[in-house]
Amino acid sequence: MDFTALSKRELEGTKAELEEDYRRFQEKHLSLNMARGKPSCRQLELSNDMLATLNSSSSFLSSDGTDCRNYGLADGIPELRNIFSAMMEVSADNIIVGGNSSLNMMFNTVSCGVTHGFAGCEPWGCQKGLKFLCPAPGYDRHFKVTEYFGFDLVTVPMTPTGPDMDAVEKYAENDPSVKGIWCVPKYENPTGITFSDETVKRFARLKPAAKDFRIFWDNAYCVHDLTDDPDRLLSLWHECEKEGTLENVFFFSSTSKITFPGAGVSAMAAGDGNLRDIRKYNSVMTIGPDKLNQLRHIYFLKDINGVKAQMARHRAIIAPKFKTALKKLDTAVKGTNTASWTTPKGGYFISVDVMPGCAKRVVELCKNAGVTLTGAGATYPYGKDPQDSNIRLAPTYPPLEELEQAMDLFCTAIKLAAAEKLLSEKL
Amino acid sequence: MDFTALSKRELEGTKAELEEDYRRFQEKHLSLNMARGKPSCRQLELSNDMLATLNSSSSFLSSDGTDCRNYGLADGIPELRNIFSAMMEVSADNIIVGGNSSLNMMFNTVSCGVTHGFAGCEPWGCQKGLKFLCPAPGYDRHFKVTEYFGFDLVTVPMTPTGPDMDAVEKYAENDPSVKGIWCVPKYENPTGITFSDETVKRFARLKPAAKDFRIFWDNAYCVHDLTDDPDRLLSLWHECEKEGTLENVFFFSSTSKITFPGAGVSAMAAGDGNLRDIRKYNSVMTIGPDKLNQLRHIYFLKDINGVKAQMARHRAIIAPKFKTALKKLDTAVKGTNTASWTTPKGGYFISVDVMPGCAKRVVELCKNAGVTLTGAGATYPYGKDPQDSNIRLAPTYPPLEELEQAMDLFCTAIKLAAAEKLLSEKL
Repeated sequence: MDFTALSKRELEGTKAELEEDYRRFQEKHLSLNMARGKPSCRQLELSNDMLATLNSSSSFLSSDGTDCRNYGLADGIPELRNIFSAMMEVSADNIIVGGNSSLNMMFNTVSCGVTHGFAGCEPWGCQKGLKFLCPAPGYDRHFKVTEYFGFDLVTVPMTPTGPDMDAVEKYAENDPSVKGIWCVPKYENPTGITFSDETVKRFARLKPAAKDFRIFWDNAYCVHDLTDDPDRLLSLWHECEKEGTLENVFFFSSTSKITFPGAGVSAMAAGDGNLRDIRKYNSVMTIGPDKLNQLRHIYFLKDINGVKAQMARHRAIIAPKFKTALKKLDTAVKGTNTASWTTPKGGYFISVDVMPGCAKRVVELCKNAGVTLTGAGATYPYGKDPQDSNIRLAPTYPPLEELEQAMDLFCTAIKLAAAEKLLSEKL
Repeated sequence: MDFTALSKRELEGTKAELEEDYRRFQEKHLSLNMARGKPSCRQLELSNDMLATLNSSSSFLSSDGTDCRNYGLADGIPELRNIFSAMMEVSADNIIVGGNSSLNMMFNTVSCGVTHGFAGCEPWGCQKGLKFLCPAPGYDRHFKVTEYFGFDLVTVPMTPTGPDMDAVEKYAENDPSVKGIWCVPKYENPTGITFSDETVKRFARLKPAAKDFRIFWDNAYCVHDLTDDPDRLLSLWHECEKEGTLENVFFFSSTSKITFPGAGVSAMAAGDGNLRDIRKYNSVMTIGPDKLNQLRHIYFLKDINGVKAQMARHRAIIAPKFKTALKKLDTAVKGTNTASWTTPKGGYFISVDVMPGCAKRVVELCKNAGVTLTGAGATYPYGKDPQDSNIRLAPTYPPLEELEQAMDLFCTAIKLAAAEKLLSEKL
């Protein structure tokens, strides 16, 4: 039933039915949350054994002989670099392993640019009218960092192959006030798409107008596959090496969604020049990261095969949730012409585009019936979706049966909001 | 034997004997380190049991019901606030518990001032010609932070009762370009002195010319007593509450020298206004600290009594080292008029003032015989001691017998450098 083809009378009837459905949801007094990309309790349990890897009789020495209980080793323990090197497809020598938050590393990197600058350029904080490219829909916390530091956020459309590279090139190669771009290149937050080979190559070939333009390549979901035919991301590191453009990029990743979201390990990589700037910053900022937690990760994951085995266990828990969420949409919304959505092969999110002007209403309807979604607009710079259309679904946290209830409500809300809108247009 | 009273001939004889002693040290091929305030291996072992407090069957819930394995709780887990509240003598409601490094928290706080400012003032980065007060001898890493952010470092003399408060008041109350001061109020690094009640009260009564002047009160050694009659530091928090000046201060501490230097927990406290600024900064910077490590601290230390018991165990290991170092100085250097030193009742350091112009030479002599000391000058802004006189001793790291050897060499070096200097003046 295509809602856009219904007469006013048919729409009124449909809306009345949907309102009746909605009331029944309200009577259930749900209290469910699909707002953030949080692993579920069952996923957390997959890493519980990591906690017992260290005890009084453990060896606390890293491979270079450092006692991980004491001060030192600003770059983190060497053995973890190999794991991140394999995960991120970057050179192990150019990795810094840090604390529990890659967002914190990205924030520090932007902050370093603002107060001290990169490659000998004037600090960003001393330059005026700076801009940062934000492919949208994208990750709200990325956008917030550059917003907090006073950049003008420039929206670049996200396409099924990655950011609109015509737009990226136009801005970055012609305007020296454009200083960087946020990217989640694999299983993007929230669309779940993976940048195509051509997109990665165009990033590697980018010739920014500003010498201190930087690509923030947040490969947060690099090993977070959910199917037997996972997406394959071309290594930007290797492409940049070929093009001689390594200094244009900061690479990030973490184990937040491999081990524990609150107690994982973050990592970044960069070319030698950028690393010099970052290491200087780090040497003043801290005496070193928590190396015992890094050691726990080594003892628990061992190597990249350990990571892959752990991700297979995550997949077994998460994949059915994605399947359920997508099936509910297929069953209840497909063919109604009220929404479209992505079918990700990995990551943490499904991106749903409801009828323009309806996203806030859908989120409100869900909230008033006890289901919290990511705020409408969150996936756009400044939290403002110009179409009021995009909603990010995070299906990992609720248990399966709760997810089913939440998705039933969500589907009803999509159609109810659409019926309201279409009717208001016929008045 | 007062070196300054010796004739040229007597000095030559003394110098020759000292050179002979020195050669014997060189023949031992020592490789010892007294450079940094690092806990020894035996001290690290005191906290090994903390590592096993978490395992698969632990409760991972904080007292407010948060699963510490997952995202969230930007201020840290509530139960740790009570411990830090008792340690720091500040209100538990105004504490943020963070990651493994209080230096990192201080760096972030300065960085926040530089990029965003405090109390609605223009960011420090937009103001010109700013100064920061550095009581010296003091902690090199403090000075480095404000140097890195471009402040002019203004040396304030350290006295036996704390920083020269006449100088502090003169600068802070008359010059709005003075934006803050670094303080280690108890068992100061490196002098080991504790600020007197009068000094604390004068800090509380300070009326800075700049609204965004801030005291960085790094109470790193608040529970680090080494004697039965420990120093008692007046609570600046309570004094400031009386005076209505709480917004002038940021308070810091950590468990780095209670549990693990590399894997402890840091904390900061501030008045409501400053906390608003810092919480906003933190909310963009990270999703939250490593709460599992916080939980380990709670399970291991339990409460302030657990902290005190742990510190008694540290004392049992450290106090004999301080005693040995001081005894060596008393036996070999006292009465020679070549050096003076402090006798701290706690903390991690002994501050030695050798003959003016001799500190670099003493450090060089020690280094060439295999003992690494903190670089001469490190305790002064820009690493430059105008008198070339102060040397920071860190006696905690080496085992007792190694410390004895290192101290014997150090005492010889002090006297040899003095003999060299006095002789050169007689030429």
